[in-house]
Amino acid sequence: MQYPEPIAKLIDSYMHLPGIGEKTATRLAFYTINLPQADVDQFAAALQAVKRNLKYCSICGNVTEDDPCQICRDQSRDQSKVIVVEDSKDVMSLERMNEYHGLYHVLHGVLSPMEGKGPDDLNITALVKRLQTHPTITEVIVATNATPEGEATAMYLSRLLKPAGIKITRLAHGLAVGSDIEYADEMTLYKAIEGRQEI
Amino acid sequence: MQYPEPIAKLIDSYMHLPGIGEKTATRLAFYTINLPQADVDQFAAALQAVKRNLKYCSICGNVTEDDPCQICRDQSRDQSKVIVVEDSKDVMSLERMNEYHGLYHVLHGVLSPMEGKGPDDLNITALVKRLQTHPTITEVIVATNATPEGEATAMYLSRLLKPAGIKITRLAHGLAVGSDIEYADEMTLYKAIEGRQEI
Repeated sequence: MQYPEPIAKLIDSYMHLPGIGEKTATRLAFYTINLPQADVDQFAAALQAVKRNLKYCSICGNVTEDDPCQICRDQSRDQSKVIVVEDSKDVMSLERMNEYHGLYHVLHGVLSPMEGKGPDDLNITALVKRLQTHPTITEVIVATNATPEGEATAMYLSRLLKPAGIKITRLAHGLAVGSDIEYADEMTLYKAIEGRQEI
Repeated sequence: MQYPEPIAKLIDSYMHLPGIGEKTATRLAFYTINLPQADVDQFAAALQAVKRNLKYCSICGNVTEDDPCQICRDQSRDQSKVIVVEDSKDVMSLERMNEYHGLYHVLHGVLSPMEGKGPDDLNITALVKRLQTHPTITEVIVATNATPEGEATAMYLSRLLKPAGIKITRLAHGLAVGSDIEYADEMTLYKAIEGRQEI
């Protein structure tokens, strides 16, 4: 005995999503049957619209409806700073802070020899070209994640771009605001001491 | 700064699903952008097909493409037994066991005064009518979950159906096969002792 075909197909589609196994996919599929028709139509339309209407900005690589993206088009933003991030979600996190008004560059990943990801697989050539054609940019802030791959990518970018006379900086490491020293790991504590500042 | 509209809409749709919050929905939406076009088309089609092509069997209440469902149509199945379950997923679990060849009846929920769910909100009237019009059915096996609501529903059905002279049984409670007594909760142990059998 199999599930009726429409359910089996929907379970299969849900299982294509990351972190969703057969049990969860089955639960979601049965839940879908009882969703209002309008919600399901909207969901289906949203799925296809995301594929159809989104592209990557030809300047910074961020996802956008219009090329160039809203941030790259905005001349009121600080044109001298570029924050380099791993993916588009990071742009959103930094924008939410509402304190940074410069530009961004999205790498779409990090260097990872284990996964066979080299510099050519990232949006790095466009960054180099961007810095050459936009001499207004004087500082590149590398905001890759605090993982071994993120650090390696930051080092790589630093060596690649420094010779051109551009200031390369890296986000500070240290204790998260509101966190306990008791529960901080050794590396974080080490970085926090190393980066201590006079008060 | 907001996400581009197509992403924001898809995040919203994912958040309609149970157990999926904003963070997960965002992760899924960005993942969707990079899925192959064919997968996304298939996903969208599957969502709508599940709404369009599935109905509930007018006899047992199980989800099905054709009414009556495959199980209700199958005359080779034992027409004397009906297992009553909470939902369609339970039918599939029991069918996978491959040992039961009788019929089913899906309640679509359990009695739950807390959630305002009474007998009229469940597929119970159809069950009573089914037993009246099909005198071949001599045993109703109540397989609601071993939760307080499942037990209450089982008791309710027992009181409702017994006067008609139908045998009402309940799935056995006890230790799960392969489980440790050390980790079993008190109620399970109590039920396991109460239901002990001669060997």
